[in-house]
Parts: sequence; structure tokens; C-alpha cells
Amino acid sequence: MPEYLSTAPVKGTRDFVPAEMSVRTQVFGHLYDVLERYGFLRYDGPVLEPAEIYERKSGQEIADQQLYTLTTKGGERLALRPEMTPSVARMIAGNAKSLSFPVRWYSHPNCFRYERPQRGRVREHWQINADIFGSESANCEIEMFELIHDLMESVGASSDMFAVRVNDRNLLTSALTDVVGVSPEHLPAVFGLVDRWEKTSAEEHATSAEEIGLTDKQFEKLTEALGSGAALLDELPAEVKEQSNLVRVLSSSAASLVKFEPMIVRGLAYYTSTVFEVFDTSPKNRRALFGGGRYADLASLFTKERIPGIGFGMGDVTLIDFLDTHGLTPAPRNEVDVMVIPVTEELADAARQVATSLRRAGLRTSTPIEHRKLGKELTRADKAGAAAVVIVGQEDWEAGNVTVRSLATREQQQVALAEVPSIVGGLVTPA
Amino acid sequence: MPEYLSTAPVKGTRDFVPAEMSVRTQVFGHLYDVLERYGFLRYDGPVLEPAEIYERKSGQEIADQQLYTLTTKGGERLALRPEMTPSVARMIAGNAKSLSFPVRWYSHPNCFRYERPQRGRVREHWQINADIFGSESANCEIEMFELIHDLMESVGASSDMFAVRVNDRNLLTSALTDVVGVSPEHLPAVFGLVDRWEKTSAEEHATSAEEIGLTDKQFEKLTEALGSGAALLDELPAEVKEQSNLVRVLSSSAASLVKFEPMIVRGLAYYTSTVFEVFDTSPKNRRALFGGGRYADLASLFTKERIPGIGFGMGDVTLIDFLDTHGLTPAPRNEVDVMVIPVTEELADAARQVATSLRRAGLRTSTPIEHRKLGKELTRADKAGAAAVVIVGQEDWEAGNVTVRSLATREQQQVALAEVPSIVGGLVTPA
Repeated sequence: MPEYLSTAPVKGTRDFVPAEMSVRTQVFGHLYDVLERYGFLRYDGPVLEPAEIYERKSGQEIADQQLYTLTTKGGERLALRPEMTPSVARMIAGNAKSLSFPVRWYSHPNCFRYERPQRGRVREHWQINADIFGSESANCEIEMFELIHDLMESVGASSDMFAVRVNDRNLLTSALTDVVGVSPEHLPAVFGLVDRWEKTSAEEHATSAEEIGLTDKQFEKLTEALGSGAALLDELPAEVKEQSNLVRVLSSSAASLVKFEPMIVRGLAYYTSTVFEVFDTSPKNRRALFGGGRYADLASLFTKERIPGIGFGMGDVTLIDFLDTHGLTPAPRNEVDVMVIPVTEELADAARQVATSLRRAGLRTSTPIEHRKLGKELTRADKAGAAAVVIVGQEDWEAGNVTVRSLATREQQQVALAEVPSIVGGLVTPA
Repeated sequence: MPEYLSTAPVKGTRDFVPAEMSVRTQVFGHLYDVLERYGFLRYDGPVLEPAEIYERKSGQEIADQQLYTLTTKGGERLALRPEMTPSVARMIAGNAKSLSFPVRWYSHPNCFRYERPQRGRVREHWQINADIFGSESANCEIEMFELIHDLMESVGASSDMFAVRVNDRNLLTSALTDVVGVSPEHLPAVFGLVDRWEKTSAEEHATSAEEIGLTDKQFEKLTEALGSGAALLDELPAEVKEQSNLVRVLSSSAASLVKFEPMIVRGLAYYTSTVFEVFDTSPKNRRALFGGGRYADLASLFTKERIPGIGFGMGDVTLIDFLDTHGLTPAPRNEVDVMVIPVTEELADAARQVATSLRRAGLRTSTPIEHRKLGKELTRADKAGAAAVVIVGQEDWEAGNVTVRSLATREQQQVALAEVPSIVGGLVTPA
């Protein structure tokens, strides 16, 4: 007896059978539509990139532990992209001369990280990336926050289901140095502590603060500052606030779209000022769905030209979890609009003719491949979610007619061939 | 001075900047539409698969020379999929119990082969895969050929630009044994010779035939048989023809869709009877664009259940070449429908309000990120292919109006805010 290989996908990766794929196609379709309505242009790039660009830019954790690498027979050391930003930085740098900055670009790549699979984490995930390149204006931030709200709305989320939590790392630096009194040599460690703040307990905060070398007084002030929300801004020097795009956003009409949270850091790589994350407010799923931020110089690996930008990456796993949590996951689309069923096998050609006329009218139409009894095919049509069936019988066909049956009402009528597309079209609920 | 990394994509891979991506999105969008109209359901699967499934199934050339492999820290030996069939075989086998065969599935994966890059060959390519699983009926073949014609038509090809060349390997076997008189032990080598037939000269044919051990008489008969087209069928035994789906197709209404060519083999792996290829008839580009065939047992690596099928993989590189050759490549879509331009920086918020109302009406709308003079923004709007601009001036705005300007006619009119979406909508050419 032969030994069969497993039908499971490789650990941490996923198969998408049609019913799942249909959900994804609908959800991502809404997101693409919103991005296009904002004038974002879609691009794409290779899965394989030189390993070096991640080793030099993506932070230690990714490069050392999470990167899938391989060496080709030609000796190139390549990696499966763990994120899209280095690829798009390469493309933007390579095309900088022909671009009229600022530009809005988006993509929907699959990215690879060798992580322990767990809720919200897989080894291959799909991510909507959206960025504005080539501008330092606070208009970028405002547009990003408007875009995020419209993206969330497009998949059915109401504004009480999520919060866009924002910070500016320069405001945090000022808070730590000017308000808490952290010395420059302690700053990186304290940033790390702040980044972990919400995932650790008050006791752990205290232990970490002591290890870093903060005084009790400093630790107390730190706790207070991080908990004070927008009130913290009043304590910061005016010249720091004048430089902050985020402060501009908070005094614009877009202020209502975001919530200032001084402890948002979003990891330690890349971002240089504005950072943000979209947070699920459901008690069942309280966590960041996705995030992004501003980088002062995107493409420094590739060009001396300084290209600032702002963007985010919205992963599919947390998004689909969010939709499930809030009951927003769409049903899979029905498989066909109409099935054309020949009563005898000899009428298969006739059925195909009718199917062709329905397809030309834009209707999703199938014909049986294996000949079965009419009753079995009707059951199959119901299961496929068809709105109608067209039954092709010998005598009808010879008279230039077929029978059109609504699967909603079970009513049927004899229809002349030329009328079939419009009659069936009327039975099909518009998509 | 720092050393900058190359901005070129890894050898054999491609970046798609927005103008290129827009062409692809349009072309593939047409193909998806046709597939959906035939009732094909989209699925997707992981880029990474166990290397073993290709080593056992995909043929020596792929496994030995063209496979990108890597070993994870967990010790799994993985490969980047070189083709989609083993993945979909795995998925079909794993889901066989819940599927109502026959099923029609399609996908659009990227696949990876370490080949020498040349015209029509790259190391990462995108491929439309379409298959019918679970039926041996000739209705599958007929539907596949109708589908291929509609796919080609959807991207603008007329039927004189391509030919669907078909064969049945069992007919070829019969021709070789019953007509040419090849002995069983020579059959595999002669199949190889036939597979290379069109790419090699008459002289090379003779040399190969001699090396294989064919007699002069056999070689003469072979040459004659391969050149005889449909006439060859008359020489084949009736019992062979009765078993052939292709013979059924050739005597059906679908006969006009295909051309019988006894030398079509389509490589040596997988296919067990029907094989076909879509051939570019342009003198500038005479070659196979893509191909496919029937397999008697798709998923034998994964299950004892015998699952027959038929399908094809349509690669993006040859398809785009075909479109270029025939002048069918669509122009990139314009970037936005309308731009909303505030006359002063202080009116940016007002412009965003107008933009929101236009987006809600489904129009692709952008606002300037960096404030520039009106003339510069009008030039930018022209370059982006916008149909209209909306100009927001201080006095107008205070009176509840804006100026709408058609970029086609250069005419402009004062419009009340509530009317802006419908007025602008009227200026935008429907997509």
C-alpha cells in the first residue's frame, strides 16, 4: 500500500478553498475600491529580494530569526520578503526621476516570516500596503487617517468598533526627556519599555524601570505621563509641538478621527515621527489590528535622495479575525447565476448554445459536465445558489423555446430563445 | 560616501510600477470575468510547499535544476512552487469529501523556476490556472476550448490571431505503434523526438530517429504521419478512436474551435490523453502561448481516490508578449477622475470635504498634499488624466459654491456644493 503525503498546507501557511477565497475577494475588493477612490495606484514586486536589504533595514528580530533565505545555484543570497517596505523603497528610488512626488501607491503582497504560528500570526500572510511618498506635510497624516476610516467602513465596521490610536515619537522623546527626565543613554531602553507597556503588568513596568536605572520618582512620572493622554501635550515645549505633524492633525478637523496615546511606539525600526495603530475596541479582541507611521528617509539604502513617506500595512489575518469578531464577514458569493440543463445527453450542444448567450449578457452560467437526472441537477443548482435554471427539452428546443425556472419562486415559463438572457437577467439579483 | 544597493529587481523577477500594473489589472480582470461567467471558482494556496511533492511529480528537469528550495530552522525542506498543479491536487484531495464533483476551479498564483532569463522566460511568473476536476467526459474538453476562445476574445484577440492545436497522446501512441510500427521499447524516445519535432530541423529528426533505432521506412512513415493532420485519424483503429475524447470533440460543434496536430505532446509529465496548446499565428511571434491537457489521476500522491481532470496554465509573460505583438495592450487607466484644488492652503479642509462627497459618489478623487499654484495643479491634473478639477476659492466657498472645470473642454462653471458629485460625474467618462 503506498504511503500518501499529507494534504495539509505547510505549517503556518493557508489554503483558500473557493468559499474562503470568495470572502477574501469581496473584502479586499472593497479595500481596493476605497484606495482607488483616494487616487492610490497599485503596484507589485517580486517575492524574492536580496537578503541583504532586510539584514540592513528590517530590525534584528526579522533578520536573525524570521527571514526565509535561500542561496541560488548562481550564488545569490535571496530572501522571501518579510514585508513590502524595502521592496517599494527600492522601486521608488529606482523610478524617482520619472515620478512627480508626492505619489500615492498601494499593493497587496504576500509576506513571509518564520514565526511560531498562533492566533493572528502565520508564516505567509497577505498585506495591504498603502503609502504616500515624497512629502512631509501633515496633509499626508490627515489623508491617511481619513483613508483608514473609509477602509474600515467599506468592510462594514462602524466607528465604535475600532480606534485609530496615534503618537509622534518626537513628542514621546520630549515627554521622556523634558517631563520624566530620562537621560539620553537610558532613552532607547525606556522606548523599549514603553513599546511593551500595554502588554505587561504594572509590576513588570516597575521591575524594568529599576533594571534600566530609573529613579522611583522618574518611574512615577513615566507612569503618569503615559496615562495622561492628550493632557500630556500641555506639558511639552512649544517648539517641539510646532514641529509635529500630529499636533497639526489634533488641531484640524481630522482630530475626531484619532486618539492620542503617548505609549504607541510600533516597534523600533523605520518610523521617525508619526506612528499609529488601528485598535479593535471589542472586549473580545482588544488588540492592534494593524499600524503604520512616518519615515523621514525611506530609501537610504538605495539612493542619496531623501524620500520621506508615511504608510501602513494591513494584514489579512487580523482583519479577517476582526470581521469575524464583529459579525461582519460576508457570506461567500453564490457560485453561478444560472444553470442550463439539457433533459437528454443529446441536447448538451443546445444547452451550450443557450449558456453562451447568457454569458454574453454577463451572467455566470454553467452547464452540466456529467449528464444526470433533472431532479439531481436542480438540487445542484440550489446548492450553487443559482437564481434560475434553464431547462432544454427536445420538443421545446425544436420549437425554438426553453423553460426558465426561478429557484426562488419555483415558477417556470416557456421562453423564446432570443428572450432568455433578459428573462433570466431579471431573475438574477444584481450583485 | 556610502555604497548604495542596486534598485534593479533580482535577476529574472520583475517590478510592476503603477502604469504596468494597471495594464495587468485590466487584462487579468477580463480573464477573471470570463472564468467567473463559466462558473469557475477562484482558490489560492501557499507559495511554499514541501519540496518532495515536486521531486516526485513535476518531472526531472524541474526537480533537479529549476526548483528553488530552502530548509527552515525547523528542518522542513520546502520549495517555492514551480507550478500550481501539485498544490491544487493536494487541496482537491484534502477536500474531496466535501466537494460535489465535477468542480471548476481557477487561480492566479506566482510560480518560480530557476531558469536562464530570456524572451518569454522569467524566474517568477504569474499564471492563470483553470481546471475541471472529477470528470472524464468530453464535455470537459469542449468547455475548455470554448473557455479558451472566450478568454482570448476578452483581451481583444480575434480568432485569426491564434490557433488551439490539440492532440490525444493515446492517438499518438496508436499512430506510432499501429501506423509507424514503433516497438514498445522505442516509444518513450520517439515521444521525446515528437515533442521536439517543431523546434528541430528535418536533418535533426533523421539523426535522432537513427539514434533511437528507427528504420528509414519507419522514419519516413513517422514524418508522413506527423504531417498529415486530421487525415491521420482515418488510419487509426476504430477502438482507439472510440476511447478518445478528442475524437468526440472533433465530431461535435466545437470542432471548429481547434486544429488537430498529431505532434503536440506538451512535455512528458502529467498529461495522459488530451493535450493542447494555444499558438500565436503572427509571423512575428509563432510559438505556443500556453497549454494544458488531461490527467487520468491528479492526486495520486495524496489519496487513493482517482480524480481525473483537465486544465491549463496561462503564463503572464507570453500573454503580454502576445498582446504587444498584436497591438492589443490596453493603455494604463487614468490615475484619478477628478482633482479638488484649494486656491489657498487654508482651504485644504474645505477641499477635503468636497473630495469626500465625490468619493462617496464612487469617483476617484485626489486633493493636493503639497500646496502649489493653481496652474501647476492643473498641469498635474492633466497629466493624471483627470476628466475634471474642482477649484475651491475663498469667496465661492463662503457662498456654498465651487468651480467645476472640464479638462476636455476647458469650460468651467460655478456649482453649488450639493450638485458637485452629479456635475462632476457627468464629466467623467464611464470606466
